[in-house]
Amino acid sequence: MNNRILKDIEFIVEIDKMKSILRQTKIIGENRREDDAEHSWHIAVMAMILCEYANDKIDIGKVIKMVLIHDLVEIYAGDTFCYDKEGNLGKRDREIAAADKIYGMLQDDKRKELRALWDEFEEMNTPESLFAASMDRLQPMLNNYHSDGGTWKKYKVTRSQVYNRIAPVKKSSDQIWDYIKFMIEDAYAKGLLEK
Amino acid sequence: MNNRILKDIEFIVEIDKMKSILRQTKIIGENRREDDAEHSWHIAVMAMILCEYANDKIDIGKVIKMVLIHDLVEIYAGDTFCYDKEGNLGKRDREIAAADKIYGMLQDDKRKELRALWDEFEEMNTPESLFAASMDRLQPMLNNYHSDGGTWKKYKVTRSQVYNRIAPVKKSSDQIWDYIKFMIEDAYAKGLLEK
Ligand SMILES: [Ca+2]
Repeated sequence: MNNRILKDIEFIVEIDKMKSILRQTKIIGENRREDDAEHSWHIAVMAMILCEYANDKIDIGKVIKMVLIHDLVEIYAGDTFCYDKEGNLGKRDREIAAADKIYGMLQDDKRKELRALWDEFEEMNTPESLFAASMDRLQPMLNNYHSDGGTWKKYKVTRSQVYNRIAPVKKSSDQIWDYIKFMIEDAYAKGLLEK
Repeated sequence: MNNRILKDIEFIVEIDKMKSILRQTKIIGENRREDDAEHSWHIAVMAMILCEYANDKIDIGKVIKMVLIHDLVEIYAGDTFCYDKEGNLGKRDREIAAADKIYGMLQDDKRKELRALWDEFEEMNTPESLFAASMDRLQPMLNNYHSDGGTWKKYKVTRSQVYNRIAPVKKSSDQIWDYIKFMIEDAYAKGLLEK
């Protein structure tokens, strides 16, 4: 048996830890926070379902791969709540060290492929990474919207904070943006978001 | 806003329930059963990592989509433990009714696309569906193997039951099959599997 496949299996076993990295967002209708594996699965399916609305022609296979692996760094760097200013201060450095570690488990060609996907995701400069970021940001909003406000209410998040956070959609899809505006305004009208 | 995107969002919200469908397999090193969303994420990444070992040329984008949605039927049909003979008796009928319901939430073109992926997965007659089934079956084995036997020990599963269950790999990848034989024999030698 070659050493290459044993390395791959070690990586596959290591990333099981994603199932224990908790996010702030809760499962709809349950009093349980979702984890990174669940979140990553959800946005991968969202990308499949919503890709027809992308403004630019996108490589959906690439978007799906990107969202599937974009949060692996959190195995070592932890999840940082997006509206937590202090927690976000050292985030970039922590995540780069984590990326070196997790992708470094793979042999050169695969390490490069996955790291390139993560770098592209982080830079948010291509139609694929903008669409991937849009899915990543929309999913917790949908869960909050369908959980009586969820973390929005818990942390007194304002309407403009949410508009800021979801801005990548504006560049990525006019049709999804129409839905976003409807959702945010409805959430605000219902008192789920602060002024 | 068009009705089409509202239907898509309803579907996306509905499939959040995958995070509450528990499987028998446990997270490695934790006393918690994994759920269908976590499992589906894990096997999608496994497919990315292991696709180079497929005997036939496979469309990896298709494999990933297939594994991401293959367990959606379990939202209504529940997870059936693979070594539970009685539970598996009505499984096919339950899952077809569930497929009609969950994929039926989507508009015609998307319903057909996702349903075709699920049908192909179930029939296991193409290189893509054989590879997808291989990932689906290997993942819980890896978790058992790295959790001191996990459900193998709990339910006194035999070595030959595991060989039967993982047989799709034999048609799908010689190199992964070599690893499987090593893993099963090692698990047996360690007393994690019954004779
Ligand atoms: Ca299943």
